[in-house]
Amino acid sequence: MHHVEHTVTVTAPIRVVWDVLQEVRGYDRIFDSLHAVEVLESSDTHQLVRLTVEVNTGVVHTWVTRRDIDGDAHTIAFQQVEDLAPLVSHMGGEWRAFAVGTDRTQLVLTQDYAAREPVNGMVAGRFTPADTEKVLHGVAQRNGMNDLKSVKAEAESRIAADPGRIS
Amino acid sequence: MHHVEHTVTVTAPIRVVWDVLQEVRGYDRIFDSLHAVEVLESSDTHQLVRLTVEVNTGVVHTWVTRRDIDGDAHTIAFQQVEDLAPLVSHMGGEWRAFAVGTDRTQLVLTQDYAAREPVNGMVAGRFTPADTEKVLHGVAQRNGMNDLKSVKAEAESRIAADPGRIS
Repeated sequence: MHHVEHTVTVTAPIRVVWDVLQEVRGYDRIFDSLHAVEVLESSDTHQLVRLTVEVNTGVVHTWVTRRDIDGDAHTIAFQQVEDLAPLVSHMGGEWRAFAVGTDRTQLVLTQDYAAREPVNGMVAGRFTPADTEKVLHGVAQRNGMNDLKSVKAEAESRIAADPGRIS
Repeated sequence: MHHVEHTVTVTAPIRVVWDVLQEVRGYDRIFDSLHAVEVLESSDTHQLVRLTVEVNTGVVHTWVTRRDIDGDAHTIAFQQVEDLAPLVSHMGGEWRAFAVGTDRTQLVLTQDYAAREPVNGMVAGRFTPADTEKVLHGVAQRNGMNDLKSVKAEAESRIAADPGRIS
């Protein structure tokens, strides 16, 4: 299992960032690679969602992710639970938001992932185990930064649209 | 000016991590590349320190850094104020620690830096501006991860030495 963490400072109060993180129905508008979100289950403490994602240019996959929401801690733990993404046998992690004073937020995204076992020496019929590791490492690094930037941009655009929210 | 942020989860309560961050006199024991620390001034809210650092294998430089300490926010803002490191016209940033529950800490290191202006087309007589940017980018990425890992290792080793501190 690999573990990576990325972070960014968002110039918006934690409640604005938390709203963005929680509203999974809006994710397809925020994340460029996310084509569709179907909410299968939802409560105050969890969401089960089917995501349709362009994992590479023109390559679209669908999987089901469970999100466990802790509104007090401002964390959302997520894990792919069905129809996992290609190449991975495990993909999970956590969104974490921390107040930096009253008007900024430290947003953290952790990712835990493991590659699929090769069959006849190849993963998904195409990649050697070493290449699979390299591809997944690149994806985790890129997604980590891109997803943080997307949430940051959305939260900051809400502040710009309604500056009163910052106070 | 460039801005980068790195983060790591430390398996130690925030007060243990905060102790490590504050005790600048112990930094030469924690950070491999730091050969010596001389404390020039010190109060509850600031430290002025002369650092002797191996910036590259066998290349040792000395500069003075000011650290502004906010014990309530668990942040330490730092900035090189005299005898700047080679290649940089500005180097500063912030350590931030956030509690993740009672027994873990999200440790963040931000870095802001700018390259020196070239003289006769070269920075420090050796690098083109483009190469300078590349070198500084690499240093910031490497230092970001290494410094976080060093603080994490020190905090977790204190917990291991005295497990009672975790509760």
